[in-house]
Amino acid sequence: MKNIFLISQTFIPQVLTSNWSIDSKAISQADLLPARNGEKCTEQFLAEILQILFNHIKKTYDGKSKVLDFHHPHQLLEGLEGFNLELFDQPEPLEQILVDCSGTLKYSIKTGHPRYFNQLSSGLDIIGLAGEWLTATANTNMFTYEIAPVFIAMEEIVLKKMQEIIGWGENEADGIFSPGGTISNLYSLQAARYKYFPLVKTKGMAALPQIAVFTSEQSHYSFRKAASVLGIGTDNVIAVKCDERGKMIPSDLEDKIQKAERQGQHPFYVSATAGTTVFGAFDPLVSIADICKRYGLWMHVDAAWGGGLLLSKKHRHKLNGIERANSVTWNPHKIMGVPLQCSAILIWQKGLLQSCNEQCADYLFQMDKHYDTSYDTGDKTIQCGRHVDVFKFWLMWKAKGTCGFELQINKILELAEYLYNKLKSKPNFELVFHDKPECTNVCFWYIPPSLEHAPRDEEWNAKLHKVAPQIKARMMEEGTVMVGYQPQGDKPNFFRMVISNPASKKSDIDFLLEEMERLGKDL
Amino acid sequence: MKNIFLISQTFIPQVLTSNWSIDSKAISQADLLPARNGEKCTEQFLAEILQILFNHIKKTYDGKSKVLDFHHPHQLLEGLEGFNLELFDQPEPLEQILVDCSGTLKYSIKTGHPRYFNQLSSGLDIIGLAGEWLTATANTNMFTYEIAPVFIAMEEIVLKKMQEIIGWGENEADGIFSPGGTISNLYSLQAARYKYFPLVKTKGMAALPQIAVFTSEQSHYSFRKAASVLGIGTDNVIAVKCDERGKMIPSDLEDKIQKAERQGQHPFYVSATAGTTVFGAFDPLVSIADICKRYGLWMHVDAAWGGGLLLSKKHRHKLNGIERANSVTWNPHKIMGVPLQCSAILIWQKGLLQSCNEQCADYLFQMDKHYDTSYDTGDKTIQCGRHVDVFKFWLMWKAKGTCGFELQINKILELAEYLYNKLKSKPNFELVFHDKPECTNVCFWYIPPSLEHAPRDEEWNAKLHKVAPQIKARMMEEGTVMVGYQPQGDKPNFFRMVISNPASKKSDIDFLLEEMERLGKDL
Repeated sequence: MKNIFLISQTFIPQVLTSNWSIDSKAISQADLLPARNGEKCTEQFLAEILQILFNHIKKTYDGKSKVLDFHHPHQLLEGLEGFNLELFDQPEPLEQILVDCSGTLKYSIKTGHPRYFNQLSSGLDIIGLAGEWLTATANTNMFTYEIAPVFIAMEEIVLKKMQEIIGWGENEADGIFSPGGTISNLYSLQAARYKYFPLVKTKGMAALPQIAVFTSEQSHYSFRKAASVLGIGTDNVIAVKCDERGKMIPSDLEDKIQKAERQGQHPFYVSATAGTTVFGAFDPLVSIADICKRYGLWMHVDAAWGGGLLLSKKHRHKLNGIERANSVTWNPHKIMGVPLQCSAILIWQKGLLQSCNEQCADYLFQMDKHYDTSYDTGDKTIQCGRHVDVFKFWLMWKAKGTCGFELQINKILELAEYLYNKLKSKPNFELVFHDKPECTNVCFWYIPPSLEHAPRDEEWNAKLHKVAPQIKARMMEEGTVMVGYQPQGDKPNFFRMVISNPASKKSDIDFLLEEMERLGKDL
Repeated sequence: MKNIFLISQTFIPQVLTSNWSIDSKAISQADLLPARNGEKCTEQFLAEILQILFNHIKKTYDGKSKVLDFHHPHQLLEGLEGFNLELFDQPEPLEQILVDCSGTLKYSIKTGHPRYFNQLSSGLDIIGLAGEWLTATANTNMFTYEIAPVFIAMEEIVLKKMQEIIGWGENEADGIFSPGGTISNLYSLQAARYKYFPLVKTKGMAALPQIAVFTSEQSHYSFRKAASVLGIGTDNVIAVKCDERGKMIPSDLEDKIQKAERQGQHPFYVSATAGTTVFGAFDPLVSIADICKRYGLWMHVDAAWGGGLLLSKKHRHKLNGIERANSVTWNPHKIMGVPLQCSAILIWQKGLLQSCNEQCADYLFQMDKHYDTSYDTGDKTIQCGRHVDVFKFWLMWKAKGTCGFELQINKILELAEYLYNKLKSKPNFELVFHDKPECTNVCFWYIPPSLEHAPRDEEWNAKLHKVAPQIKARMMEEGTVMVGYQPQGDKPNFFRMVISNPASKKSDIDFLLEEMERLGKDL
């Protein structure tokens, strides 16, 4: 018995190891399926891959492991010992491929680590992960029922469930999973434009008045991206003021709509945010819905981040009014912990996506098929091929139940409140805003001893502005924890803490603050 | 010793099975990591998942297995025995999750089966698959180097390699992996528009003349989709005529450009196709490049399908002139057999994507980081979050070498020629065009005995039009083989055969034709 690979034997089925004696260096991808007799080699290779992945998963959840092992771009590009990114004419043996897989994970970020607080998406849900592995194995495309029957059916069921949770009646709405919240927001803006100005599809923007889009100054930058892509122009995205807490001020929205009309612009679209990126604020949806109704405007709710709260009886009131929206962006890959990517755009009008986007390509969407071709959903999209993003989400929903998501969301919101209370009690930390967190965002400054008693003038601000980036750099170098920072308006750089990983615990929050003090005290 | 799961024991590591005796029905996702002591349960669950996936892989490559087990949408939605898609409030035990995974694969299409010829993407490359599993396990996002260091470095290396293969000099070009060829084509059109009319970003299309886009009548429908999304309008996408073989006629391109100018339109963009979707035709790139130069137009090459031929010394001449293109779409997930999705947009101008798309969100693209932030590539895109599509491709390149891709591509092109020669020799089949295939597309009719000697009038055409859909329906019901069909212009429905799976063999081609005769002889 000889093991062909370097790494380990844990996962190797007994049936294989008993009569296996080929020189590992000679085994290459050409020995894998579909090679004749490639079955055993394939099984063993995949078992080795699983072992490597499982080692990564174990380290991800091991609180004693590091979040990352930082290297600069030039170091990775030049190559590290045993890990060279260059591509060659000749193949590498499978043994090297396994080493490359280990190397890739070694130098990657453990985004599922309980102390990875860097982005709105974090965690590593095992069921979701299994779902992604199956999706990859099924290796299909969402354009037709013909080639993705189960996934198309699942998408229908999951989207209906989401629509029902928003509060829309059965069969009233439509939707699609898209490659990320920014594209979902683009879908919404594009569908609204088509609804009000259907000529845009054939004649382009030349047939339209100067249309204007409204969204808060703290909303996501995707509306500017989308306006640029769609040919609306970023100048026609009008920023509505926010209160101190980051919520859109309805009276300013109304003022801005009237001002735009006076200037000859044609208001048609308002995006409210349910969970802003930095402050985690929920715009007042009911007041915004009233204004949209009064002025005949499309109301979108960007709930990419906050949408998950709809599943919590305790927290869903923060999104009251969302049922009046014409469209909703909701990213299960954020607060619900679904692996990347999983973003839905939901539209409260059946058929609009289809008529807005369909081009009826003969080679794909034949009408003379033997099944109900209304399930060929591919022509609803701005894509042609579309990745299967629904399966992992469906599988997680099966495994957790709706109530499992609720538990998970309540838990991370409690954790955010724990951090908030802790920060209030610590003199060397300062909150950016003073209300209890509505989502899991908590924004704060660490004030190093050198700044504690200094006068709070411009120089102080400039010094404080440099503190967060320096602490962040040290965190990255040490690899102990990751959290984001940014300035906002005239506020100097502050940390934005977000929690979306159900694996994070109070002790991880404690660690974060202690680590900031340790790394920042000499600044 | 007791196995907690239903499915099998093959992959269960010995270390686990020895002292495992929990009632399987009681085990749920809450027992998996990050649960305390969740390691063993997680390992066993993932080993079971691997077993299910491996069974699917084995069946995929087993020529005796079916390609699919067809059910109508209502059947899947209503639920099949032991496989119910409905979602509930309460969680299901892990045992049921494993059953659900098996069910999902049972009713899915085996897109890697050697007789799945239905789409341009097929096959199931084991290395690529392992790459996708790792990507899912790393679960990160391409927006910044900070959270995806290895993958960002790999993207740089792979894109450079592709640019070099196109024939562009080092450091002259830029690019990005995007969610599919349609979005890559949209990127190209959007970047070209910005290059000629930079005001579009802020002012929108209102600041532009009536711009016009040219592409052949047999090009992909994505240009119409993109023109609709971008606010250009589908009426401004002008279809250039093709010859009988499906290649764009350069003189007609020139006529159409002049005509558009006379009508007050502003021509700015030509897309040539290298490998059309239906005929697999390569447009004459050198002549088109000459015309683009003469009129000062952006030249795009949509090589989504045919790009892989660049890696073959024998076939790359078909793309001569591509090195003069301003942008190229190239989908490794098609003819190169990389798992879905993997599509690149390559642009022969450094920095254009960045200035076209950047919105400089503070919370993501901080300029005061401690590493070289030029590697934070996320602001080049129209997305914010972006799936890691590069790793599987990089890993396959490592494992095959450039020469491995070349072998693979030469092989499937030979197989297409085998089919072509075979069809020429069979009286009950008729080719749609009579030249040797340039890509792997072979288009043909099956002529059932009832039509063989009938006069070829309108009625004959109408009858023939119904033959392909009927044979396809029977194929689906029997599950033995899958191939696409469509009409084109006044040509009645014909089969479009494409080969992109290196697992397909001559015997699979033989089977396809025999099966068509068997299923179609009574029509």
